[in-house]
Amino acid sequence: MSNRLFDAYFTQPAMRELFCDRARLQGMLDFEAALARAEARCGVIPASAVAPIEAACRAELYDFDALATAICSAGNSAIPMAKALGRQVAATDVEAERYVHFGATSQDAMDSGLVLQLRAAVGLLEDDLARLGAALAEQARQHADVPMAGRTWLQHATPVTLGMKIAGWLGAVTRHRERLAELKPRLLSLQFGGASGSLAALGDDGFAVAEALAEELRLQLPEQPWHTQRDRLVEFAAWLGLVAGSLGKLGRDLSLLMQTEAGEVFEPSAPGKGGSSTMPHKRNPVGAAVLIGAATRAPGLVATMLSAMPQEHERSLGLWHAEWESLPELCCLVSGALQQALLVVPGLEVDAQRMARNLDLTRGLVLAEAVSIALARRIGRDAAHHLVEQCCRQAVAEGAHLRQVLGGNAEVRAQLSEAELDRLLDPAHYLGQCRRWVERALEEHARLG
Amino acid sequence: MSNRLFDAYFTQPAMRELFCDRARLQGMLDFEAALARAEARCGVIPASAVAPIEAACRAELYDFDALATAICSAGNSAIPMAKALGRQVAATDVEAERYVHFGATSQDAMDSGLVLQLRAAVGLLEDDLARLGAALAEQARQHADVPMAGRTWLQHATPVTLGMKIAGWLGAVTRHRERLAELKPRLLSLQFGGASGSLAALGDDGFAVAEALAEELRLQLPEQPWHTQRDRLVEFAAWLGLVAGSLGKLGRDLSLLMQTEAGEVFEPSAPGKGGSSTMPHKRNPVGAAVLIGAATRAPGLVATMLSAMPQEHERSLGLWHAEWESLPELCCLVSGALQQALLVVPGLEVDAQRMARNLDLTRGLVLAEAVSIALARRIGRDAAHHLVEQCCRQAVAEGAHLRQVLGGNAEVRAQLSEAELDRLLDPAHYLGQCRRWVERALEEHARLG
Amino acid sequence: MSNRLFDAYFTQPAMRELFCDRARLQGMLDFEAALARAEARCGVIPASAVAPIEAACRAELYDFDALATAICSAGNSAIPMAKALGRQVAATDVEAERYVHFGATSQDAMDSGLVLQLRAAVGLLEDDLARLGAALAEQARQHADVPMAGRTWLQHATPVTLGMKIAGWLGAVTRHRERLAELKPRLLSLQFGGASGSLAALGDDGFAVAEALAEELRLQLPEQPWHTQRDRLVEFAAWLGLVAGSLGKLGRDLSLLMQTEAGEVFEPSAPGKGGSSTMPHKRNPVGAAVLIGAATRAPGLVATMLSAMPQEHERSLGLWHAEWESLPELCCLVSGALQQALLVVPGLEVDAQRMARNLDLTRGLVLAEAVSIALARRIGRDAAHHLVEQCCRQAVAEGAHLRQVLGGNAEVRAQLSEAELDRLLDPAHYLGQCRRWVERALEEHARLG
Amino acid sequence: MSNRLFDAYFTQPAMRELFCDRARLQGMLDFEAALARAEARCGVIPASAVAPIEAACRAELYDFDALATAICSAGNSAIPMAKALGRQVAATDVEAERYVHFGATSQDAMDSGLVLQLRAAVGLLEDDLARLGAALAEQARQHADVPMAGRTWLQHATPVTLGMKIAGWLGAVTRHRERLAELKPRLLSLQFGGASGSLAALGDDGFAVAEALAEELRLQLPEQPWHTQRDRLVEFAAWLGLVAGSLGKLGRDLSLLMQTEAGEVFEPSAPGKGGSSTMPHKRNPVGAAVLIGAATRAPGLVATMLSAMPQEHERSLGLWHAEWESLPELCCLVSGALQQALLVVPGLEVDAQRMARNLDLTRGLVLAEAVSIALARRIGRDAAHHLVEQCCRQAVAEGAHLRQVLGGNAEVRAQLSEAELDRLLDPAHYLGQCRRWVERALEEHARLG
Repeated sequence: MSNRLFDAYFTQPAMRELFCDRARLQGMLDFEAALARAEARCGVIPASAVAPIEAACRAELYDFDALATAICSAGNSAIPMAKALGRQVAATDVEAERYVHFGATSQDAMDSGLVLQLRAAVGLLEDDLARLGAALAEQARQHADVPMAGRTWLQHATPVTLGMKIAGWLGAVTRHRERLAELKPRLLSLQFGGASGSLAALGDDGFAVAEALAEELRLQLPEQPWHTQRDRLVEFAAWLGLVAGSLGKLGRDLSLLMQTEAGEVFEPSAPGKGGSSTMPHKRNPVGAAVLIGAATRAPGLVATMLSAMPQEHERSLGLWHAEWESLPELCCLVSGALQQALLVVPGLEVDAQRMARNLDLTRGLVLAEAVSIALARRIGRDAAHHLVEQCCRQAVAEGAHLRQVLGGNAEVRAQLSEAELDRLLDPAHYLGQCRRWVERALEEHARLG
Repeated sequence: MSNRLFDAYFTQPAMRELFCDRARLQGMLDFEAALARAEARCGVIPASAVAPIEAACRAELYDFDALATAICSAGNSAIPMAKALGRQVAATDVEAERYVHFGATSQDAMDSGLVLQLRAAVGLLEDDLARLGAALAEQARQHADVPMAGRTWLQHATPVTLGMKIAGWLGAVTRHRERLAELKPRLLSLQFGGASGSLAALGDDGFAVAEALAEELRLQLPEQPWHTQRDRLVEFAAWLGLVAGSLGKLGRDLSLLMQTEAGEVFEPSAPGKGGSSTMPHKRNPVGAAVLIGAATRAPGLVATMLSAMPQEHERSLGLWHAEWESLPELCCLVSGALQQALLVVPGLEVDAQRMARNLDLTRGLVLAEAVSIALARRIGRDAAHHLVEQCCRQAVAEGAHLRQVLGGNAEVRAQLSEAELDRLLDPAHYLGQCRRWVERALEEHARLG
Repeated sequence: MSNRLFDAYFTQPAMRELFCDRARLQGMLDFEAALARAEARCGVIPASAVAPIEAACRAELYDFDALATAICSAGNSAIPMAKALGRQVAATDVEAERYVHFGATSQDAMDSGLVLQLRAAVGLLEDDLARLGAALAEQARQHADVPMAGRTWLQHATPVTLGMKIAGWLGAVTRHRERLAELKPRLLSLQFGGASGSLAALGDDGFAVAEALAEELRLQLPEQPWHTQRDRLVEFAAWLGLVAGSLGKLGRDLSLLMQTEAGEVFEPSAPGKGGSSTMPHKRNPVGAAVLIGAATRAPGLVATMLSAMPQEHERSLGLWHAEWESLPELCCLVSGALQQALLVVPGLEVDAQRMARNLDLTRGLVLAEAVSIALARRIGRDAAHHLVEQCCRQAVAEGAHLRQVLGGNAEVRAQLSEAELDRLLDPAHYLGQCRRWVERALEEHARLG
Repeated sequence: MSNRLFDAYFTQPAMRELFCDRARLQGMLDFEAALARAEARCGVIPASAVAPIEAACRAELYDFDALATAICSAGNSAIPMAKALGRQVAATDVEAERYVHFGATSQDAMDSGLVLQLRAAVGLLEDDLARLGAALAEQARQHADVPMAGRTWLQHATPVTLGMKIAGWLGAVTRHRERLAELKPRLLSLQFGGASGSLAALGDDGFAVAEALAEELRLQLPEQPWHTQRDRLVEFAAWLGLVAGSLGKLGRDLSLLMQTEAGEVFEPSAPGKGGSSTMPHKRNPVGAAVLIGAATRAPGLVATMLSAMPQEHERSLGLWHAEWESLPELCCLVSGALQQALLVVPGLEVDAQRMARNLDLTRGLVLAEAVSIALARRIGRDAAHHLVEQCCRQAVAEGAHLRQVLGGNAEVRAQLSEAELDRLLDPAHYLGQCRRWVERALEEHARLG
């Protein structure tokens, strides 16, 4: 009864691996092994108990079907894990079994195990974002001077450059990397509180064990356990949602540029890629679809994580449960979007000639602003706006090029020479700060190293 | 890399089976087989092509890993399916291969295949809801006269009965069953339009094939294809969300009643069920956790389905993709909540004595209304409210029972006799229409058969 | 401190009116007046109390600032309302004041008052949807035979007609009207239970009063009170979300068709409408923006309503509160989207010539399927697909028209004559069931009357 | 048609003021005035134009109804604003009117104006969170040693202290303050790009003007305009969602502690506060309701902001629009929750005696862990667990106190003396690190100053 048909398309194998059952169990077992080491270091349990416990902390030793069944009775995954671990240890060392999971509670194992999984996930995401940033930087640099139609409200506006558009995508990636660096210490924090959070079961040794355990696991020791203060996890979930949104923007732009009517930028082609079962000529934006899909699904999952925050007292029922699959799913979806972005961005196919042709689609109207601004300096903003609007309407009505209409308008000609008009209607002369924005985005990217 | 550790706890095996990879593929293959039969009936393809195609329409013949990989290039699951099906047919009958997927598009196979899966899911849900309704009806009947504290704002209010509370849960289930009956014909509709929805590839035979295909699949033939009008699916998703919400209400109530401080109603006990790894005495509401968890996760998934509605033109990219895993996930979560409700409701353990004790926890204050109402008839609403409020405050201040305070208050005694006061302060005499609400809820349930 | 700058743009005045403070108060007062009448009819209160209470049940008599302040202490709007009403009645008839809000609780007034507001809202929505359906039907009929490019994945596919596209929009509206008719009796139900739902304060008269009250308000008497079973309201919220999604689809299509590169269909023009502050030639899709905006905002609001369903016991705190502004907001947003759709649809400007030009943008490739299908009948599906794919690639590579490439391909010519090829490459001959879909959608619309 | 009945209850006046129509307009006008100053400084417009423009940049000069109407045609609020501003300037200085909004686009004014509003909002939130942190710190300190039942799964678990519970609330507030400090520079960034983002209308002066404008407005000059990269705003929205979630947790805990059956901590009382219309004795958690309500509504609004991220090209239609009311609403709701938290936290009424009584509600069972741990050191974890479980069951079955059962159990007595048992069953001796967690949370709070 597997349900993985879309896994390869929607998610990244390495990320799925981090959130598979084996990894989930291993995260908890890593916690248990480290707990034993920490407690032995603090003299809470005998040193001789460590090796047998560590030896049993390998996920491959366990029966996942049995665990899944036991979860139904236990209501979480750590109780069956701890029991199975105890049995496994007891099989080789009855004495050591006494010290399994000692002084901890199921939530400690589940939450800290999750944090270990998330640390690996953060590592993947950092790498992928760095690679995506580099790919975007390269593309922005390469296309920094390629003019294309700016489009606002899906209508042609004044020209931009492809580099500037890509720099916009890059800027978001850079900020996401900064954010991740900021939230990381909050996220990668030990959860360790025992039954109700007080570590009372460890008596006076509780804090020393907590310190040693954090060290063993190379996690932050937080100011206090966070069993029902879930903001650390939800902050990360929201960050994932932000990344999904920015990649969705990239995918949206790309899918629009690939439209038959636009035809300016394409996902890289590959044999059989994006073909249609009935339309042999089509090349569908199959990568962009994943980016948009993830951006459509992420908000609901982030909302779930936020909705699950008001967890009751010292351990929630139901709200905590709502996190268990939602956060991994979000990680997997965002990793999948990143994977597609990394396939798509480096191989973008750009049709600069089509961009130039499209820029003239309005017969000069997209450069009306250039003329309007020039005229505004002489006859005032409203008058200029009005005059140019008139010329634009005439151009539309007559199906004429704006250059021609302007050239034939006495009021305009009283202010602007033929040469001025020619220059005003050349997109390459109306790119403003496009190059600078690209350079600044590249600098910011470079600063992250 | 499986990810199924929580499946048994959060979802129902029969529902997971309906949405596993095999079933997803089989849904599409059932569409393809029926298409061949329909086209043969209409003379569009030779009758001889049907058997070889049908023979190949068995999911177990296919390599799911290969399909998963091919999906990455194709951007959907039907293109690889149709190709693999073609190869499979060709292996036994090269001629028949020509007629595979004839005139259809990938979305036809995916959407109609999905509808076939959903028909089975609807069947499961109908059965489960009927069984849950019956179990709730039985419990409501049984506890129709058991008084308990009404609780508003989580504070004790005038008494209700356990039967009335359960009847409330039942009423929602009854309405959900009615809603499902209403939406079913809209949901269980064929999607068949070919490349862009016109069925042009089938020439003049298009409509006849559509009719025959709907008949073969026992689906409604809708007024037109619905490839980018997704309201049929989203209506069902919203219905699932409603069911999750109602079950969440049941779980919320139950978890509150199971509180150590309340202790009135309990999930049925079972060996090892709801135990804590550190607190040997605990019996956690592990069923209620699933109900609340599903109610927390469903809204985000419904929102995803709604967000995915504005699908572009004749086939969306990204928004359509966002549905593929979201709707099955919603089905599975709701089925899991139903499964837990079906475990919990028939075996509810009720502590009527504790209810009676709790009813007296406010020392009569919860019956202040009874007194207030009785007094209002004589001295006016505000005066009565004021007088009773005063007595209540006195009772609180002195730690006395309200009955005692009222009995000692001259203004009260001027209006109400000792016997009247006794009766007014007996919960069993202040249950109003509780019994009638139960009966009416039972009748409504009974009408559904 | 008003916050209404976008009200006129995003919402409908008539709907805002139904959910303004005055209407909210009036809804509760209508409940109170009807309650007095019902209780007098049942002999629970003296007939003489009715007139003074009814006279005081006019919203304009009350100080809204004072009510808003009192809500902060009361935690809901009905307690201050009932108190103010009592004072107002007492000012003219001290005796009658005793019978104000008699036996009811604040939630009865708030919920039933809300249902009265929703009845009016449903009326508006029915009218608007009927008018929108009619406008869409008219446009679908008018443009039933106008061919345009089908677009899947935002790429040109086989032709459709504008009529078929509009019929798709119409079909969703028709279904929404059916759904509304189905849910209406569930939604328009009295809430009346008194303090905890038992109506105990009314003694033996409780049920008779409930029946009379339902009659007075022309609302359904439900099987039992629904104070914490919110599915009636949430079902309606989900329906509003569905409508928003379908209108968002309309807006999405329209905005894409209005793109500078497409230019096929436009929102009706009006002086100053959709102008840009800097680009005098632009005509922005300002109506479509509202449709898309509503479809983007509605899912979150529906999710809020769903999240608020697990309401505790006999009255929730916080979850109930979350509904109070969310459902009205959803009504207002959907009404605003409907208002824009009603402005846009009847005045759609269609450029059929541009559609024809765009249909040839792929130089015949969108009709490759027609050729492929024709060939498939003779040489098998895969061979045909392969051959046509080859020709399409050649056409793309050479920048040639597909007709020309096909005509020059020996394999093709062996199967298809010049005349056959000409016909296959004419969009008007490849419209399949487009006309039939329109007709069927019109019939379904007509059936609703 | 105002809709403000719940404003005082759900939102903070100062925050509403920041997002009222006047403030929204003033934000844009502040942008326009600063633009004129910046452009004059750069020699782009004459210095003489500044004063007339500045003079006209006062919101009170404008007709909001006319603006609201004009928005319907314009599709945004800045076009009507710029036109009205132009007319206003022209009325006193026709020449200056030429330089109004010079080189800017409507989105520049709307987005930068919004950022100015958000700066003030951030200021309010910083202050409120600092005050809330201080109040929580004070309460945590004061109640650091008050034992109460820990509650997991809503069932009694090992003891905690009220101080520890409050320290948990405080920790989240501290982290939110850190997060706000981190995101602030990203959020408070100028948006200035002109028609498509290139600032082309300003020719070579574009960048200098941008720098001067950022300086004038004391905003960061970002690496590039962010018109369709909305992550800065959505990051803030997500932060608001996190705050709402944490306050919801506070409200949830409080409402549970206020339950009639718990009665441990109460919102501060005030005349008439939390009274019920029918139950004179009740004191409803009206503050907690707002906290929970905000936590229920925020996730949907955050999801909306996330869903609106994939904005097309250089300006979106619909998705941008979806932000305009959603982000202000989120600010207002969170401000309202903070306002209630600030009312509630400093005046919390604590019933330590009730806590002590409740701690004994399980007749010692909540200290079973203490015994289990002590025994585990001697007889192994599973054996100890089993033995204590047995004693607990016996205690439950016999309705006896656990102390008594343990004292009577030979196996137990073989390991633990009477004195040891007495000590093990005293909550005050089983508080573990509770005090340390409080101290550490206080230190973290103190570090923020």
